[in-house]
Amino acid sequence: MENVTVLGAGSWGTALAIVLAENGHNTLLWTHREEQANEINEYHSNKKYLPETKLPSNLVATHNLKEASDHASIIVVAVPTKAIREVCSQMLSYLNKKALFVHVSKGIEPDSLLRISEIIEQSLTPEVIDDIVILSGPSHAEEVVLRHPTTVTAACQDIEKAGIVQDLFMNNYFRVYTNDDIVGVEIGGALKNVIALAAGISDGLNYGDNAKAALITRGLAEITRLGVKMGGNPFTFSGLTGMGDLIVTCTSIHSRNYRAGNLLGKGHNLTDVLDQMGMVVEGVRTTKAAFQLAQKYEVPMPITFALYDVLFNEKIPKAAVDELMIRMKKQEIDELL
Amino acid sequence: MENVTVLGAGSWGTALAIVLAENGHNTLLWTHREEQANEINEYHSNKKYLPETKLPSNLVATHNLKEASDHASIIVVAVPTKAIREVCSQMLSYLNKKALFVHVSKGIEPDSLLRISEIIEQSLTPEVIDDIVILSGPSHAEEVVLRHPTTVTAACQDIEKAGIVQDLFMNNYFRVYTNDDIVGVEIGGALKNVIALAAGISDGLNYGDNAKAALITRGLAEITRLGVKMGGNPFTFSGLTGMGDLIVTCTSIHSRNYRAGNLLGKGHNLTDVLDQMGMVVEGVRTTKAAFQLAQKYEVPMPITFALYDVLFNEKIPKAAVDELMIRMKKQEIDELL
Repeated sequence: MENVTVLGAGSWGTALAIVLAENGHNTLLWTHREEQANEINEYHSNKKYLPETKLPSNLVATHNLKEASDHASIIVVAVPTKAIREVCSQMLSYLNKKALFVHVSKGIEPDSLLRISEIIEQSLTPEVIDDIVILSGPSHAEEVVLRHPTTVTAACQDIEKAGIVQDLFMNNYFRVYTNDDIVGVEIGGALKNVIALAAGISDGLNYGDNAKAALITRGLAEITRLGVKMGGNPFTFSGLTGMGDLIVTCTSIHSRNYRAGNLLGKGHNLTDVLDQMGMVVEGVRTTKAAFQLAQKYEVPMPITFALYDVLFNEKIPKAAVDELMIRMKKQEIDELL
Repeated sequence: MENVTVLGAGSWGTALAIVLAENGHNTLLWTHREEQANEINEYHSNKKYLPETKLPSNLVATHNLKEASDHASIIVVAVPTKAIREVCSQMLSYLNKKALFVHVSKGIEPDSLLRISEIIEQSLTPEVIDDIVILSGPSHAEEVVLRHPTTVTAACQDIEKAGIVQDLFMNNYFRVYTNDDIVGVEIGGALKNVIALAAGISDGLNYGDNAKAALITRGLAEITRLGVKMGGNPFTFSGLTGMGDLIVTCTSIHSRNYRAGNLLGKGHNLTDVLDQMGMVVEGVRTTKAAFQLAQKYEVPMPITFALYDVLFNEKIPKAAVDELMIRMKKQEIDELL
């Protein structure tokens, strides 16, 4: 049994805290909203994010970041991507020993082009970081809390640390694999949102299953090309955090990125779509970052480039997809690597 | 412009014949049913298989196999898998020169464990086979005839022959890649139907997107493991004929194998399901063949084995899926290869 802190009581942070508490770990869930912490402690519910779910009685919440920092030597970071830098920086003043950080976020910072683990490293200091493990894979929180079978990957350069996280979360409905390729896991997780936008556009144009499968497959091929150039293992992209997560994101109406793409395909412009979504569409930021990464690493990424033009240069979605189709004929595998 | 014969006027054979005719090739479509050949020639329609589609006026049909054999030095074999041996054997007596054979079928023969290209080789003689090219990928016929964007792979040990087939079919809505890995393309295409059955079962049990993504991803991992042992290129399985086709088959209600799995997951037994489908469910035969191949090549294929038990040993589907979830914890990539 371990002491574990989970930062962030959105749907995914809460679902992971439930898994940990059910596994018998002494789990503390931090939220910056006092009333949400009170709701969890008094009513064992989190109506805003998981309205149907009864939380285990041994799951305790706090809105005190010092308490959260003191509680554990394993800290799961599940705050929104754009809040990671701020929360980690605030936490730094409270941490007085090394902790193992587990992050579950997906994205690449435009311009800086940092991966999430690099943002965490930058916001903290080597004195307080034991190591950073990424937990990623095809996993809707709503299904995990119903104890439906779910598989994810714990990735760390030090595979033994990944094993600690595997042992922490693993149970009979939540199956955890390990992987030592953090670059591959983080790049695959982030860039799937670019392809989800493209797949949504294709469906918005009513182009059908063949076109969507092509975009997903050739999309994963270009993500793999980039990820390998950045130091990732090509097989990671065929795994749960690459292909697995990509499939869910591109075929589920729950995916914000897919839904945003769908609206673009139906002819709405980006500003309208973002207004209509009323929340962050991570894939839009990530498309910009992916476009910059492709240039930096000199990797051809035709789908990413087409999407960049749709999002930022007012290209008509239909013209973008049609142009992708009439590119030079190619060999399938030579293009992959 | 080439003379091309297409054998088989089902939905896929007809759709491919339309693409060829539209590309300006002198295309002859063979069907063993005289009335179907007459319908195509007189009314330019094929109501049974593509009820909404007007066929091009330059697409000619015949029910005379000698005429079909004489017509072309490129022969596309698009008859049902179980009819390939018979049609090829009949054709042998009419062929008097080498032809390039293109096949578009998916399956492995149980017991003999032959791939389709090996069945064609066995049914013909070296004197009449220039080479065999496989055309495969995520491609519903119904979408191709609407000219919706579609991508497929032409595979041949001799990449120049694959290039001939690429040139033959390629146009602005039908994009063809080449690959020299026929084992990988045929194994991926056949075994996707096993995973489609498993994905259908998971959806029939209402297990959700996470479980289905896990089955698809881990399913592709075990197909890759087998295919590589048989001589395939691991990257083929991440391509259009592996992952791409797998996604479509596992997420489309048009897939017979997925639908059959869905009924099994809802509690129907195999005999009832096959009765209810009223047509061949290729994945059932292929599961038996895959089970035999896994033993022959000594490759662990837990999803295939679980499905084999459901289909042939009356194992309860829920028990099979639950057992898959509590297998030993593993490293993701070591398991892949």
